Amino acid sequence: MSLPDSFERLTVLFRKLPGVGAKTARRMAFFVLQQPVSYAEELAACLSGLKDRIFTCSRCGNITDREPCAVCSDLLRDRSTLCVVETVEDLISIEQAGVYSGLYHVLGGRVSPLDGEDLDEECLAGLVRRIGEDRIREVIIATNPRIEGDLTFHAIVDRLGETDVSVSRLAYGLPVGGSIEFADRTTLLASLESRVTVKRKE
Amino acid sequence: MSLPDSFERLTVLFRKLPGVGAKTARRMAFFVLQQPVSYAEELAACLSGLKDRIFTCSRCGNITDREPCAVCSDLLRDRSTLCVVETVEDLISIEQAGVYSGLYHVLGGRVSPLDGEDLDEECLAGLVRRIGEDRIREVIIATNPRIEGDLTFHAIVDRLGETDVSVSRLAYGLPVGGSIEFADRTTLLASLESRVTVKRKE
Repeated sequence: MSLPDSFERLTVLFRKLPGVGAKTARRMAFFVLQQPVSYAEELAACLSGLKDRIFTCSRCGNITDREPCAVCSDLLRDRSTLCVVETVEDLISIEQAGVYSGLYHVLGGRVSPLDGEDLDEECLAGLVRRIGEDRIREVIIATNPRIEGDLTFHAIVDRLGETDVSVSRLAYGLPVGGSIEFADRTTLLASLESRVTVKRKE
Repeated sequence: MSLPDSFERLTVLFRKLPGVGAKTARRMAFFVLQQPVSYAEELAACLSGLKDRIFTCSRCGNITDREPCAVCSDLLRDRSTLCVVETVEDLISIEQAGVYSGLYHVLGGRVSPLDGEDLDEECLAGLVRRIGEDRIREVIIATNPRIEGDLTFHAIVDRLGETDVSVSRLAYGLPVGGSIEFADRTTLLASLESRVTVKRKE
């Protein structure tokens, strides 16, 4: 059966979005048809020229529509602490949790031998340069808690040996609200190794 | 933290799509940013004016970009059999399975007392009229196998009493490839009641 061309094309394009299969793409296309015309038009207007309006902050690598970005230009933030993340997605997650008020540095890459990825020399050099120029005192490495993240972590730590800053990384352990029963072995091991002393033997 | 306006707006619009939550919407917006410019532009072009290009077939209720639709104008199909479905989505599912070669009639509604929905009188009258005009010989009612679908089925059957056509409905039973262990009580009951005789006692 031949569906209308523009309907098929819309389904194909929706299907490219992450997490969207054939059936979901079709449901989405139907949804658009069922909405008031304004929905499709607004979405079209928003998509058209999107990449001209949004670019990368030259200081931290965040996405932004002005230079420097909202985080870098916020004078109320702690400008001596730098949180190093792999991607802008990670930055936004930390930012939306509202748990950190320093600055960020987006690597835009990671060390992943299996995928043939490595950190740019320029990426690490840029981090070291920024630490010097912006007088950073503490670097918090917030790479993801898995093999690639750990490799990336070590690459950064190696490189930061030459600088005069404190370096820390996010704690590994039980996710709050989770349960020990469903925790995997590696997480349990990490939570044991990093156990917090509550009372010391006198 | 303030994300770029157009990024936020895109996330809000994506989030309205069925099955998309806040995190998925953000992932989708990032995905669009990471694609070549052509992706966003093509999606925008496809969305803009979509509802002008796609309308409803005046005969069967299918979506189409020409009148009558691809199914209704296909002379190779069995034009004496009419499959009645609740929605265009159902029509497309049956069509893509490639298991039926007659015509369709989309109700565009259903009987659902809990949701305060009922079939239009015009909807049923239109079906009866079409059966007469198009000389339909068999009507296959393909409403969904749940309460609303059954109520809709009975409403149609009541109305078709006045016409001179065969009426059937899709079989209920075990989904092929499923397992008895995971079948629910109602499905098991249906599969027992509609059991197929393999050998008759002599």
